[in-house]
Parts: sequence; C-alpha cells; structure tokens
Amino acid sequence: MADSREAIDGAMIGARMPAVKTPAPRKGVAMEAVNLEEKFNQISDHWKPRIVAGLNDLHIKLAKVEGEFVWHSHADTDEFFLVNRGELTIEMREGSVTLGAGEMFVVPRGVEHRPVASAECEIVMIEPAGTLNTGDAGGERTVADPEWL
Amino acid sequence: MADSREAIDGAMIGARMPAVKTPAPRKGVAMEAVNLEEKFNQISDHWKPRIVAGLNDLHIKLAKVEGEFVWHSHADTDEFFLVNRGELTIEMREGSVTLGAGEMFVVPRGVEHRPVASAECEIVMIEPAGTLNTGDAGGERTVADPEWL
Repeated sequence: MADSREAIDGAMIGARMPAVKTPAPRKGVAMEAVNLEEKFNQISDHWKPRIVAGLNDLHIKLAKVEGEFVWHSHADTDEFFLVNRGELTIEMREGSVTLGAGEMFVVPRGVEHRPVASAECEIVMIEPAGTLNTGDAGGERTVADPEWL
Repeated sequence: MADSREAIDGAMIGARMPAVKTPAPRKGVAMEAVNLEEKFNQISDHWKPRIVAGLNDLHIKLAKVEGEFVWHSHADTDEFFLVNRGELTIEMREGSVTLGAGEMFVVPRGVEHRPVASAECEIVMIEPAGTLNTGDAGGERTVADPEWL
C-alpha cells in the first residue's frame, strides 16, 4: 500500500506551499478512511485545530472547543463549520447561528464571527491551507501551523 | 434578515460562474444552519447530488446512493466524501476504501474511482462548483446542473 501512495502522490509528500490557490500541504495520500470519532478521541485540548486531510488548496481540520473564542474575520475566504458532537453558536454582528450535531454552516468571507460553546463541542472546519484560526484578530490563541492527526 | 443577506452577498444571488477558481454560485447567504438529516429527508432518488452550500469556489453536495456508480476521475480536483448514514465503498484501481457513518475520504485528483453502496447510503461531497458527478466518463448519469436544496 505504501508503494501505491507514493506512486499517486510521491512528489507532494512533505511539501509546504504557502499560496492559497495551490494544492494544500499533505502528508501523502493515505488510502484509508478518516474516522472522525477516532480522530476526536486523540484531542484533549480546546481551540487547537488539527489537520486530518487535504482537499485541493484546503485543509479539513478538527477541533474540540469550549467557551468563547475571539471575534475575527477572514477577508479572503469563507469558512465551513460542521458540528460532530455538542452545540456551537457562531455569533455574528448580524445575528447568531447555533449548530447541533449534524448541522453545518459556512461563514462568508469578511463576516466577523465568534464561535462559542457552552459545553465541549467537536467541530469539523474546512478552509484554505494557511488560514489562521484567529483570522485578522491574531493574538495568543493563534495556531499558525496546525499539526496533522 | 433578508436585508442583511442581501447586504452581505447581494451581487452573488443567482450568479452562474463557470471558472473553478471563482466563488461558487450560491443562492445568497442563508444565515441559518444546514441540518443534514432534514436535507437528506428531502431526497428520495439515488446518485443525484443536491447543493446545500457554497464554500469559496466549492459546493457542498448531498446525495443518496445505492448500487454501483460509473468508473470516472476528475483531472483537476480532489473530491471529498463523508458518509452520513450507511456504508460507501470507493473502489480505486489501487484498492478500495470503505466508509461508514462518520468517516471521510478524499479521492485525489486524477485517481479513477467508482463509488459503490450495497444498501442506501447518505453522502456529503465537496468539490469545485461545476465538477461533474461522472467526471471524465460522462453518460446518462451525469447531473450537469445540480439543484439547490
């Protein structure tokens, strides 16, 4: 199986590409399913996204969250949220959207938002590789280079 | 709420953009959660994807599938699959990947694949707007212009 992975995507393994519109960095193409529960079980901290897959120039990220995050926006990209477990409220200046398990929402580019979870919540996020979790706000909660799980 | 949607994305409403790297066509930004179960309940046919959201140049699509699809590939894009209910096998020339509920897989660009489900299965797909479900294979099962749900 290792051979076939290399044959398919050998040149990409370990690549780091900063531009948004090029293929996302990836660890090589794992020819196996990503089990969300199994991946979430490896996460015990909050607000620290991990990458589980690449999709063109995007990364699929997982995080456990609890409490209030920082208000921020992403000028150049929409941001996809899907709740796997728990409940997430995405506060926006125009109103809030609350997501339960099996519910998704896309925050449009440029829209200020603040994710809030009153109890621990598991979320899937999709956004271009290199998108900062804190967007334009920066600060100590920024995860500049998320780990792969 | 209609006013705020228009303010955010009024110019995009009803737009149709063929290029892959421009924002995806969208119906306007709905400031509400997309509930996957509720959307799947509106689908009764198989292999006919519906769009439920846009994410930059991508569409989030849902489909119910059962049986064998056609072998095909997408030269210019990876393709994201997440199983919401049931079991999907993605056959590839190098081997198969089987996804249960809560499992995801990204088929790399250019990799020939055939989705197969022995019983009805609900899947979420993410790929650039305009990506054909049958890829390079074409044929009668092609859905050239998926409906929005």
